Amino acid sequence: MRVIVPQVRRGGIKRALIMPNTVPPITTVEMALDYQRQLTEIDPEVEYFMTLYLTADLTPEMVEQAAAANIIGVKSYPAGLTTNSELGVKDYDIFDPVFAAMETHGLVLEVHGEVPSNDEDNICVMNAERHFLPRLHHIHEKFPNLKIVLEHTTTFEAIEAVKQCGDNVGATITAHHLELTIDKVVGQPHHFCKPIAKYPRDRQALRDAVISGNPKFFLGSDSAPHPRDKKECSHACAGVFTSGYLMPYLADTFDRLGCLDKLEGFATIYGAAFYNKPRQTVMCKLVKGPIKVPEMIDPDAMKVVPFRAGETLQWSVAEC
Amino acid sequence: MRVIVPQVRRGGIKRALIMPNTVPPITTVEMALDYQRQLTEIDPEVEYFMTLYLTADLTPEMVEQAAAANIIGVKSYPAGLTTNSELGVKDYDIFDPVFAAMETHGLVLEVHGEVPSNDEDNICVMNAERHFLPRLHHIHEKFPNLKIVLEHTTTFEAIEAVKQCGDNVGATITAHHLELTIDKVVGQPHHFCKPIAKYPRDRQALRDAVISGNPKFFLGSDSAPHPRDKKECSHACAGVFTSGYLMPYLADTFDRLGCLDKLEGFATIYGAAFYNKPRQTVMCKLVKGPIKVPEMIDPDAMKVVPFRAGETLQWSVAEC
Repeated sequence: MRVIVPQVRRGGIKRALIMPNTVPPITTVEMALDYQRQLTEIDPEVEYFMTLYLTADLTPEMVEQAAAANIIGVKSYPAGLTTNSELGVKDYDIFDPVFAAMETHGLVLEVHGEVPSNDEDNICVMNAERHFLPRLHHIHEKFPNLKIVLEHTTTFEAIEAVKQCGDNVGATITAHHLELTIDKVVGQPHHFCKPIAKYPRDRQALRDAVISGNPKFFLGSDSAPHPRDKKECSHACAGVFTSGYLMPYLADTFDRLGCLDKLEGFATIYGAAFYNKPRQTVMCKLVKGPIKVPEMIDPDAMKVVPFRAGETLQWSVAEC
Repeated sequence: MRVIVPQVRRGGIKRALIMPNTVPPITTVEMALDYQRQLTEIDPEVEYFMTLYLTADLTPEMVEQAAAANIIGVKSYPAGLTTNSELGVKDYDIFDPVFAAMETHGLVLEVHGEVPSNDEDNICVMNAERHFLPRLHHIHEKFPNLKIVLEHTTTFEAIEAVKQCGDNVGATITAHHLELTIDKVVGQPHHFCKPIAKYPRDRQALRDAVISGNPKFFLGSDSAPHPRDKKECSHACAGVFTSGYLMPYLADTFDRLGCLDKLEGFATIYGAAFYNKPRQTVMCKLVKGPIKVPEMIDPDAMKVVPFRAGETLQWSVAEC
């Protein structure tokens, strides 16, 4: 935490939605507030918006308490799919009372939208997100006033599904999924994350979504730090680390896509609006000018290889 | 070569089709014969069937010489797609005179059946084989008497395409593609090869092909040794190493699939028949009984991690 938290503001970010898939997972209001205190101690200039891990132990009462404590969301992980998701969801219908309470108290449901792989149904990492979409529609129809964010979307079909839903359904897009396709994932462990990057057509759909300036689509970094030896090994951990250069990556990408004018909305306005948060008053300042991404963050201890390590970006953070 | 060649017979194999994508590539009859001599010196009990690399420098005269020298095939690699394929093919039509000579002299065309990735056409490693299939049909229609092997097939569509072609078109299937899907490739560099393993449905099509006992489908190991540090790194080399345990892997898989009775045909008969070679008289003997695949081949020097390293197989080679 002491190594990674300072990377957030270095990357031009002053607000973060904090995921609950720690070890142990954040399953109670107390744990979330304690985690928030620890984060604030390390960098008090960043706002940390907290979430709870959706498990069978979460009650409508806890949702009410969470809302009172300014916890803003509940994250659902399909069981076994991503880092520390062993406790995740197998069947959404059992959560109806929790979703109803979230609807009442204004908490947002953040969804890792993949179903588990399954040979019989031909489901694997390439189509696990597509097969999740009926569940998204199902929850949205049952709880139309529940705000839902489909996190780190990676497919054309997911983008279309989110567009088709009402205003209460949004989606996040990561910096790395705007750049990667499956070709750059196989054999390249630093690009391996869940959901994995898909076909060129899917990446184009993500790019088109940000180019369009549709406020349903906003930034979610899904940044995950793993030590180099947990990536460059026989079974790599899933996750791409983007925190330290998040805004430069995005500016570099948006500039190349010819939509720099959409960056402010995507990174700072649409998400805040979706979450009913005031606009940020103090922003980071980006300047044009090359910056080289280091080969490693914290080379003497944690040894995290950042996204696009060793590459040169055309934008850097002047102040944040 | 001194480390890897002895692995061939250890894996229960006494006949091998030698690929020409060495550095430098095998582009002349002389090089092929010299390579064959070096291989024979290391293990004279294995038959090495030689191939030439299809390049623009290959002439019909060289094809005739090759046939006279018992070189049995020409391998085509689409440019830039796999290990040492920089010299590969961009447009097949320029090879018409060479293909005609191969048809006349009975050389087999071995094809790495993938087209290069291309964002505009949504082509990536997941569909590069499928997009190649029209080219297979094109060559087969133009040269119906040319024997063609679609190497290391990985998709349902490729299996169907080969079935639809005449008897002069066959296909190889590797030991590893009978086991892997894309889920076991992402983040697992020892499973990364080209073409990559695809969807569960594709793996099932490969399994169904071997279960069917259709003689169009036979073993091709596509075994490729890379040192561990070229696999467990940021950009892994493509290739799975199966030589040392090839027959045990296959027996283990076929046993699990309930088609052990199809193993002999798949591994020793159908391929020989396709190539007009006599049946093998001395075979390897497999016995039921567990064997553990080592974590590493040649741990003191080359450090190659074999397929299914550390796993236990239910069959082993008693003699070969």
